[in-house]
Amino acid sequence: MPGMMDTVLNLGLNDETVRGLAARSNNERFAWDAYRRFIQMYADVVLDIKSAAGEEADPFSLALARLKQKRRVKEDTMHTAADLQELVRTFKAIVRKRSKVPFPEDPTDQLWGAIGAVFGSWNNERAVAYRQMNSIPSGWGTAVNVCAMVFGNLGPDSGTGVAFTRDPATGERRFYGEYLMNAQGEDVVAGIRTPQPIETLERSSPKAWKDLLRVQKLLERHFRDMQDLEFTIQAGKLYMLQCRTGKRTGFAAARIAVDMVSEKLITRKEALLRVEPEALNQLLQPVFAPKDLAQARKGGRVLTRGLNAGPGAATGRIVFDAERAVRRGEEGERVVLVRVETSPEDIRGMHAARGILTVRGGMTSHAALVARQMGRVCVAGAGDIDIDHASRTMRVAGRKLKEGAWISLDGTTGEVIEGELDTRPSQVISALFGKGKKRARGGPSFEAFQRLMKWADQFRRLKIRTNADQPDQCRTAIAFGAEGIGLCRTEHMFFEGTKIDAVREMILSETTADRERALARLLPLQRRDFEGIFRAMGTRPVTVRTLDPPLHEFLPHTDKEIRALASDMGVSPRALRAKVESLRELNPMLGHRGCRLGITYPEITRMQARAIFEAACNVARRGGKKPRPEIMIPLVSTPRELALQAREIHAIADEVFAKKKLRIPYLVGTMIELPRSALVADEIAAHAQFFSFGTNDLTQTTFGISRDDAGSFIPLYVEQEILSANPFERLDRAGVGRLMRIACDEGRAARADIKLGICGEHGGEPDSIAYCHELGLDYVSCSPYRVPIARLAAAQAVLREG
Amino acid sequence: MPGMMDTVLNLGLNDETVRGLAARSNNERFAWDAYRRFIQMYADVVLDIKSAAGEEADPFSLALARLKQKRRVKEDTMHTAADLQELVRTFKAIVRKRSKVPFPEDPTDQLWGAIGAVFGSWNNERAVAYRQMNSIPSGWGTAVNVCAMVFGNLGPDSGTGVAFTRDPATGERRFYGEYLMNAQGEDVVAGIRTPQPIETLERSSPKAWKDLLRVQKLLERHFRDMQDLEFTIQAGKLYMLQCRTGKRTGFAAARIAVDMVSEKLITRKEALLRVEPEALNQLLQPVFAPKDLAQARKGGRVLTRGLNAGPGAATGRIVFDAERAVRRGEEGERVVLVRVETSPEDIRGMHAARGILTVRGGMTSHAALVARQMGRVCVAGAGDIDIDHASRTMRVAGRKLKEGAWISLDGTTGEVIEGELDTRPSQVISALFGKGKKRARGGPSFEAFQRLMKWADQFRRLKIRTNADQPDQCRTAIAFGAEGIGLCRTEHMFFEGTKIDAVREMILSETTADRERALARLLPLQRRDFEGIFRAMGTRPVTVRTLDPPLHEFLPHTDKEIRALASDMGVSPRALRAKVESLRELNPMLGHRGCRLGITYPEITRMQARAIFEAACNVARRGGKKPRPEIMIPLVSTPRELALQAREIHAIADEVFAKKKLRIPYLVGTMIELPRSALVADEIAAHAQFFSFGTNDLTQTTFGISRDDAGSFIPLYVEQEILSANPFERLDRAGVGRLMRIACDEGRAARADIKLGICGEHGGEPDSIAYCHELGLDYVSCSPYRVPIARLAAAQAVLREG
Repeated sequence: MPGMMDTVLNLGLNDETVRGLAARSNNERFAWDAYRRFIQMYADVVLDIKSAAGEEADPFSLALARLKQKRRVKEDTMHTAADLQELVRTFKAIVRKRSKVPFPEDPTDQLWGAIGAVFGSWNNERAVAYRQMNSIPSGWGTAVNVCAMVFGNLGPDSGTGVAFTRDPATGERRFYGEYLMNAQGEDVVAGIRTPQPIETLERSSPKAWKDLLRVQKLLERHFRDMQDLEFTIQAGKLYMLQCRTGKRTGFAAARIAVDMVSEKLITRKEALLRVEPEALNQLLQPVFAPKDLAQARKGGRVLTRGLNAGPGAATGRIVFDAERAVRRGEEGERVVLVRVETSPEDIRGMHAARGILTVRGGMTSHAALVARQMGRVCVAGAGDIDIDHASRTMRVAGRKLKEGAWISLDGTTGEVIEGELDTRPSQVISALFGKGKKRARGGPSFEAFQRLMKWADQFRRLKIRTNADQPDQCRTAIAFGAEGIGLCRTEHMFFEGTKIDAVREMILSETTADRERALARLLPLQRRDFEGIFRAMGTRPVTVRTLDPPLHEFLPHTDKEIRALASDMGVSPRALRAKVESLRELNPMLGHRGCRLGITYPEITRMQARAIFEAACNVARRGGKKPRPEIMIPLVSTPRELALQAREIHAIADEVFAKKKLRIPYLVGTMIELPRSALVADEIAAHAQFFSFGTNDLTQTTFGISRDDAGSFIPLYVEQEILSANPFERLDRAGVGRLMRIACDEGRAARADIKLGICGEHGGEPDSIAYCHELGLDYVSCSPYRVPIARLAAAQAVLREG
Repeated sequence: MPGMMDTVLNLGLNDETVRGLAARSNNERFAWDAYRRFIQMYADVVLDIKSAAGEEADPFSLALARLKQKRRVKEDTMHTAADLQELVRTFKAIVRKRSKVPFPEDPTDQLWGAIGAVFGSWNNERAVAYRQMNSIPSGWGTAVNVCAMVFGNLGPDSGTGVAFTRDPATGERRFYGEYLMNAQGEDVVAGIRTPQPIETLERSSPKAWKDLLRVQKLLERHFRDMQDLEFTIQAGKLYMLQCRTGKRTGFAAARIAVDMVSEKLITRKEALLRVEPEALNQLLQPVFAPKDLAQARKGGRVLTRGLNAGPGAATGRIVFDAERAVRRGEEGERVVLVRVETSPEDIRGMHAARGILTVRGGMTSHAALVARQMGRVCVAGAGDIDIDHASRTMRVAGRKLKEGAWISLDGTTGEVIEGELDTRPSQVISALFGKGKKRARGGPSFEAFQRLMKWADQFRRLKIRTNADQPDQCRTAIAFGAEGIGLCRTEHMFFEGTKIDAVREMILSETTADRERALARLLPLQRRDFEGIFRAMGTRPVTVRTLDPPLHEFLPHTDKEIRALASDMGVSPRALRAKVESLRELNPMLGHRGCRLGITYPEITRMQARAIFEAACNVARRGGKKPRPEIMIPLVSTPRELALQAREIHAIADEVFAKKKLRIPYLVGTMIELPRSALVADEIAAHAQFFSFGTNDLTQTTFGISRDDAGSFIPLYVEQEILSANPFERLDRAGVGRLMRIACDEGRAARADIKLGICGEHGGEPDSIAYCHELGLDYVSCSPYRVPIARLAAAQAVLREG
C-alpha cells in the first residue's frame, strides 16, 4: 500500500557484528558499506531524520557527497573500507546531533525501533489518504515481517537471483531468470556485473539448482499463477527471499492462462479473469523488432512522446497532407500522415497511411477515433511538434524533418522515433488475415487467443457489435467476432472518390429542388456503399446512423478549393464563399447537426432511407439473405424529432418494398447522446424501437467539455484527482452513467422490449463494458480491433457478478 | 378553440326571404350579395365543398373570378344586383353538382345542417390534436348558439359599432369606440366609410346611446373587467351582438387593474393576476410617437424585421464598430451599432449606442443578453442585412445605407426603419430616473406601476435580484426593486479602459511569475470596480462570479491589434500570433473556461478573491456598512473543483481580514449550469453554501444546442411544434427543469440550509419564474429592466398556487 513501509532493513548491524561480517565475507569494504547504508536508512525510516529546510538533501547524502569531493572519486563504490568506516562515524555523529540520542547499537533496540516504525506508518498521511480513497477500513492494521538475513556475497558458493516460473514475455512454460554468484540482490539490479541465465546455475551450484527447480514448481502450484521469485544462496544453501505473482506481457498473460487450464491448474473462469482485456491489444498490433526499438532508444532517436492513441507499430515517410498520402500510398510507398489535427476530409489519407501523428487532440480526438476504427497506428497530441506547411518541414526536439523523411510511431507507448524501423504483423493477425505464405499457421499466441475468445463467448451476455463504415472494416470485425454493426457513420462514405462533390452541391443548394437534384446523384453512390456493407454483414444487424456532422465539415475552405467548386457549380466564387461562411458556427458541436439536418432538410433523410432499403432489397434478391438494417437518428432531444424522422423513413420503406415486392425487417431507433434525451426517454421510447447510447457526445454535454478542446485541462484534472480518469476513455458512472440508468429504466418502462446498446468509444473499454452489463444493455459496439477486448470484458463482467 | 367552428352563419336566406330583405332594406344589391356569401360559406363549412385537387381555389371563388373577368370589374363590390343574382344561381348549380343534392332552401334544414356541422367540428383533426396537446378531455363536447338576426343596414335609423368600456390604449376610464349608421359589422371593419366616434351616437340615435351607456356599465360590472362590445341598432333599437374581455396595451392593463381596485370592483389579488408580467415591459421602454411610426410604415421605410431582443425604441446614426460608437457617443451623437454579431469586446460600444442591430444571433445571443441587461434597444438576427465593412455600408431590402445614415429600431416589434424617428422615455422611466425638468411628476401610468409593484411585494415569496456588473446598473435595478445582485460577471469589467491590456498580458504569460505580475496590475482596478458595486448595493447580497469565458475572447485578433500588443509586451508578433492561435478552440463553449481557468491558474481566482475582500473591507471601513459578497464558481462539474477553488478563496479571505482587522460575512457557492453538476449536486453541496442555476448554459448542454448557432433551426422547431417554445426564452421543464429539481432535492438533502437561486435569462421570464417558485428557490435574478416583471410574476406564482 502506498505510504506503508515496505523497506527491507538489514537489522542487527553494529561495530561488532560488522567486523564479524567483514571477516566472514572476507570483504571489509562490503561490510562497512552495508553498515553505513543501514544507518542511513534506519535514520530515515525509523528516526525520521530528513533534510532540513533550505538543505538540498538529507545530511547523510550531503556527508557522502562531501567525502566523494574530498577523495575526488566519482562513484560511491570507489570508496575504500577506511573511508566507509569514517563515514559510519560521521553518520552516527549526525544521528546523535539530530535525534539527541546515540544511534542504537543493540540489535534488540534496533528491532523494536523498526517494528514501531512499520506499525506507525499505518497512520502516515499518504496511507490514510489512500485508505480513504479506496474505502479500506483503518481498523485492519498492518503486519511486520521479521526474519533472519542471509548473504549471497559470502563467497563463490553464495549467490543471488531473480526468476519467473514461466517466460513473462511469451508465456512459454519454462523456468526463466538470471543470477549472480557472490553478490547481493542490489548487485543484480544495479547491473555492475552481467547476470547469468538461470539454466547455468545447474553447473555453478547443482544442489541449489535442484532445490530451486522443486521450489518454483511448488510455489506456482500453490499460488496457481506464474510467480516472480527472488532467492539467495548462502554457502551452497538456497533461501527464498520473496515470491509474488509475476508481471507479464499480453502475450504471456493469454498463453499462461490457457496453458494453466490445460494443466488443470485453474478453471476456464479463472483463466478469463486472469487476462486484462486491454492486454489482448498487444496480440493484435504490429510490432517493432524489440532489438531495433532498444537500439533506437539508446541512440537518442526518440523525438518526442504523444498519446498512445492507436496501438501498434508503424514506419513510413512523412507526408503533411491527406491528398499526398493517398497518392504516395497508391504508388506503394509507406507513409505516415502528420497533421496538426485531422478532420473528416483526411479520412482517405488516413486510410492510405501506415500511421497517423497529430500535434493536437486527445485519446478520443477525430484522429484517434478514426485510427482505432481503421486499425491504424496513431500517436496523438504530440504538442512538441511544430509543423511548417510552407517549407513542408516539421521541427521537434531541435531536429528539422522534411516531408519524405522516415519516421516511426510506436502507438503502444506513444513514442515518435526518427528513421525506419522494421515492423511485422502479430501472430494473431497473420493467422486471421494473412494470405498465402504470409498466413501464419497459428502458433501458441494465436491458439491462446482463440481459446480465450471461445470461452468468453460461453459466458458473456452482452452481444458485441462493431463501429464500421466500410466492407473491409466489416470483414475485419467479423473475423474478430463482431455480431453486427452498432454504428455505421454514413458521412464517412461521403469523402470517398467524387462523392464529396455531390455532397457539397447538396449542402450549398439554395432551393429544395436543387438539393434534391444533388441528392439524386448521391443516391446510387450511397446505395452501392450499403450493398457492400450488407453483403459483408449477412443477416447480422447493421445500425446505420443518418447524417450527423455539421454541414460545414464537408465544405471546401481554401480559396483554391472554393474557386474550383464554384466553377463546377456555375456560381460565383464570391457567392460560394459567402454561403460557406454563413454555414460556419461558433460551436459546431452544439449546432446545426444530427437530426436537426434531417428535420430542416427531410429530403436528406429520405435519400438515405431509400439508399438503405433499396440496397437491402438488392442484396436480398441477389444473395438470398435478408439484411437487417436498424436506422438510427442522431442527436434527438425531443420525442417529436424522432417521430417526424421515423415517419419519413417508414414512408420510404413502404414505397421501396412495394416497388421491389419484397419486405426487409428493419428497426428505427435513436441515439441517446444528449442529457435531455435521457431525461425524456420514456416519451422518446414511444417512437424508438431501440436506444443506442452515444456516450462520446453524452459525456461532452454532461460535463460541458469538448473532447477536441479538453487537452488543455483534462490531464491536469486527472493529475489533481479532480477526475479519477479521463471521462472520454472510462465512462463516468456518477454523471453520464446516471443519465444512462434513467434512460434504461424509463425507456423500458415505456416499451418493455426496447433494444438497448452503446456505440460510443466506451463500448470498447472494459470498465465501461462492466457498467453496460450492469445496466442490462443488449449490446456494446466498438471499433473492430477492440472487439476481442469487449468479448473478454463482457465475460469478466458476468464472472464478477459473484 | 383552434379547429372548432366559430363562424357566424346568417341562416334563413332563400330566394323568398332575400327578396323580402331587398324590399325592407331598399337595397337589392346588398340582399343578393348577402345571399351569395351565405351559400359560399354554408357550402364550405356545412357541405364541406372544398377546392378539388389541381384547382387553384374553391369552385365558388373561381366562379366569382370568372364573372369579374367577364364584366371587367376590379372589385367584388362593383357587381350589380343582377350579376349577384346570377352568381347565386351559379353557386347553387355548383352545390348541386358537387353534393348531388340541391342547396337547402328551407331555413329549418339550413339550421339543422349548421348545428350538425358545429357539433361535428368537435372531432375534426385540428381540434383533436389541440385537445391532446392541451390535455382537454374530449368528453366535454361543444355548444351551438342560435339567435335571430338583426340588421344595422335597414335604413338611416339603423347602425352598427364596436366599443370598449375603457380606453384599450391608455386604460383611461371612458367609454371608447366607433360606429356607422346604416351599415353592417363588416362595413365597419372594411373601412369603406369612416366610422364615427362613439360619443356622437348621442345625436344620431339618442335612445340607443342611452341604452348602450347603461348596458356597457352593466356588462363591465357583471364581468368585472374591461369589455369589448359589438352592437347593432335596428330601426332605433339597440341589440348587443357580442361581448368579451377586451385586449389592451400594457399601459391600459396596469391602469385598469389598479383603477378597478379603487372602484372596489376587484381585489388586489385579482388585479395582480390581471396584468401579464411581460406587459409591464411597455411601461419601461422608450417609445416612438405612434403617428411617426404609422407614417414610416405606410411610407415603406420598414427595411426588415429581426428578433425583438431588447424592447423599446431607438434612433441614431449607423456605426459598424464599437470603437467608433464610443467615439461618436462621446461627441454626443446618437448612434446605432450595427454588427454581424457582438462579442465582449463590443461592450463599451454597445453602452455608447442607443440601439444595437445584429445580423446573426437569437433572443439570448450575446447582443440580446447584454442589451437587455443595459436596457439598450436591440434587434437581433436581422438576417436580410448584408454588411460590407470595406465600403462601410449595409445593404437591405434593395437599399444601400452608409455609415452615418439615420436608422431607427423598434425593439418591441423587431422593425428596422430607415431614417430618424422621435423617441421619448416612458412615464415610469421619467418618474423614476428623470432629473430636473425631465422628471415627470408621475401620472396615471407611473402610479399604477407603483401600486402594482407594492402589492406584488406583499404576496411574493421569491426574492428578486439582478444581473449587473456596473454601479449604474445596480442603481437602476434598485430603483426597479432589486434586492441584491444574483450575477456580477467580473469579465465585463475587463473591457473597460486600459484594463484589457493587463488582462491580455495575464492571459499570454508564459510563466506563473509573469502571470502574477499582470494580475498584480489588475488587482487595484478590479478592487475599484467592486468598491463601486458594493457602495451601490449597500448591505444587499452581491453574487460575484469568478472569471468565466474562454480566454480567447479577450485576445486581439486582427494583425494590427496583435502587432500593437506585441510591441507593448516586448515579444515578437509571430510568437504572439502563435500563442493566440494556440488558445483558439473548436467549441469554446465546451472548452477551457469557467472554473477550469481557476483550477489551471489558481492565481487568477486568488487575485479576484483579494479584490472582492479588500473592496468589501474598504467600503465597510469608510461607509460603515458591511457588504455581503457571495462568491460564485462557474462551470463546476465535480465536487473537487469547487473544493479546490473554495479553499483558495477562504485562504485569501482569512489573510485579508487579518490584515484589515475586519471580518466581512461572505458565502462561497457554485453555479449549477452543467448536467453533471445537477446529477452530483449532493456531493457538490458539501462544499457549496449556495447553488445558482445558470440555466443559459444548462439549457445549452442539456439540449446540446449552442444559443449562438441555434438561429438556423430553432424557429423551424417552434413552428413545427417540436419545441413548444424556444428553450432559451422559456425554461424547459421536462429536461432542464428536471435536472434543476434533482439538484434542489439532493442539494437540500445534503445541506438543509443551502441557498438556491437562478441567474440565467429565465430568471426574468414569468413562466420560468413560476417554476422556480414551485421548486422553492430563494431568489431569481434577471436584468435590471426585468426586475418589475419578475416581481409581478413571483406574486402571481403565489396567487396561482390555488
